[in-house]
Amino acid sequence: MLNGHFYYNNKVRARERMEKFEVTILGCGSATPTRRHNPSAQIVNIHDKLTLIDCGEGTQLQMRHMKQKFMALRNVFISHLHGDHCFGLPGLISTFGLLGRTRDFHVYAHAPLEGMLDAQLKMSCHALPFNVVFHAVDPTQYAMIYDDRTMEVWSLPLSHSMECNGFLFKEKPGQRHINREMTDCYEIPKCYLGKIRAGEDWTMPDGRVIPNSRLTTPAYPPRSYAYCSDTSYLPSLVEMIKGVDLLYHETTYDNSKEIKAKLHGHSTAGQAASIAKQAEVGQLLIGHYSATYYDTSLLLNQAREVFANTIAADEGMVVEVRKKEEGGKG
Amino acid sequence: MLNGHFYYNNKVRARERMEKFEVTILGCGSATPTRRHNPSAQIVNIHDKLTLIDCGEGTQLQMRHMKQKFMALRNVFISHLHGDHCFGLPGLISTFGLLGRTRDFHVYAHAPLEGMLDAQLKMSCHALPFNVVFHAVDPTQYAMIYDDRTMEVWSLPLSHSMECNGFLFKEKPGQRHINREMTDCYEIPKCYLGKIRAGEDWTMPDGRVIPNSRLTTPAYPPRSYAYCSDTSYLPSLVEMIKGVDLLYHETTYDNSKEIKAKLHGHSTAGQAASIAKQAEVGQLLIGHYSATYYDTSLLLNQAREVFANTIAADEGMVVEVRKKEEGGKG
Repeated sequence: MLNGHFYYNNKVRARERMEKFEVTILGCGSATPTRRHNPSAQIVNIHDKLTLIDCGEGTQLQMRHMKQKFMALRNVFISHLHGDHCFGLPGLISTFGLLGRTRDFHVYAHAPLEGMLDAQLKMSCHALPFNVVFHAVDPTQYAMIYDDRTMEVWSLPLSHSMECNGFLFKEKPGQRHINREMTDCYEIPKCYLGKIRAGEDWTMPDGRVIPNSRLTTPAYPPRSYAYCSDTSYLPSLVEMIKGVDLLYHETTYDNSKEIKAKLHGHSTAGQAASIAKQAEVGQLLIGHYSATYYDTSLLLNQAREVFANTIAADEGMVVEVRKKEEGGKG
Repeated sequence: MLNGHFYYNNKVRARERMEKFEVTILGCGSATPTRRHNPSAQIVNIHDKLTLIDCGEGTQLQMRHMKQKFMALRNVFISHLHGDHCFGLPGLISTFGLLGRTRDFHVYAHAPLEGMLDAQLKMSCHALPFNVVFHAVDPTQYAMIYDDRTMEVWSLPLSHSMECNGFLFKEKPGQRHINREMTDCYEIPKCYLGKIRAGEDWTMPDGRVIPNSRLTTPAYPPRSYAYCSDTSYLPSLVEMIKGVDLLYHETTYDNSKEIKAKLHGHSTAGQAASIAKQAEVGQLLIGHYSATYYDTSLLLNQAREVFANTIAADEGMVVEVRKKEEGGKG
């Protein structure tokens, strides 16, 4: 269990004007617990809005160790109902109550979890001072399941030993950036800058029209992140995640265990990298390692043979989601 | 989270003939998770039979970190249904299944946990290759709830914000120890040594009777351990745990927070020590610290002012249960 954070792409972070879009790895092991890895959980930070993906047992403890902000979590997306992806949820919600949370907490998961979670919380917690709002996700549909000003989240049907889906996080297109020198030059009032950011031209008092392109620079192109755990090799996934900037794809086994992987609904390193290559993603992030791999370099090397721009998840890692064109070499 | 083990009473452990009776602390924090302590869980080892007491979230991860034997656990005793005492149970049982356990696993807990656990395991696990046998404990009764050749376990009604009980582990009286020189001298056949251990005399071929006291030394006196978490100050507990060799008593708060302790069904350091003193126990082990205490020396010092032979639980600690007469100074 690593307690520190480290940025994989720290150069990009230095550009302060770029809004945050990063993934923090809380756990990237598989079902059997090990001394090396925690069960699945990640925090996605898009423009400082924090979302949890999966919540294996011990997620809240790991958040404490990594000094993550509990209360800033707005919602959680659960990929499936195996314990290593959801057994940490009642404890986390219970702790929200102890810490006095009042804001709603939204849970996006398969329908059977709703009654279970409700019963668990009734059994173990006194009245919570906030609402747990459950949103049932249909694991068979590729569909938009969340939408706000900043992002969309889409469900990605996967192929596992139980119903399972991944999630595709799409950043919304941002507004254009104001060129202060130009807006000052044309004496555009501050109250109008919002419209300029949104793309409007400026009409001078003498009737001359200043085109928006002289007043602004283009918005950063929106970025995307796909989380795909757990799944066997699934070529139908390629179209759904085509061109994403960062792909987390499970890599439970090395290439020698292809039959075992298929049997248990998991993927090998080569299969994960093959999906990344076919989908022409920017970067591949592997994880969900079987307990048999203390050292994951074998998995990383096998994946890189197929898709060079691959990195291996580790607890405490923070991965910046970069536009594919900037750094993608896959 | 400490990964190592350390013996508090290591001199005693050196006496190899004494059967093991020791308590390993997996977690001794309270409900709100901290970087310092894990939620409640302990392993009681009596004669190499391993029993779990409470199973807060992350217990199985902590067992891995501390290299504890998963499969050797025979049963678990759950004191109450707050999450920091039971949310680790479905994950632990699920892992038993992944590791191929075939031996029954026995759960002693309050009745509402049975249906919940059953539903959770059905939701998240494929068919388990072993039985989970549930034994409902009545939290209002001081009663024997477990009995085998080695030990008895008694439930201890406590006073908390929900129904809660502690557990009293009583070692069964052992057999007398053979004096090899004497049994060899009288040429007693090996097949008869079991009866000698059980206390029988030996009749020589010429009719002389050799009294058992010449052939054996007395058995070690049986030891006892009481686990009392969570509870407010409860004088009625004193008679139930009178003279136990080791008492774990919750110490959620320091003495300045007596009103808060009572309000939440917890105890202060002074109250825990007062119970230990009144019950004339051998040694007091404090734990279940509120998240506000990173350093627990304040709690330890306050307890020692009332009951000198007090030690403070910590993750990774192994405490030998010693006969009160050997080392008790309380």
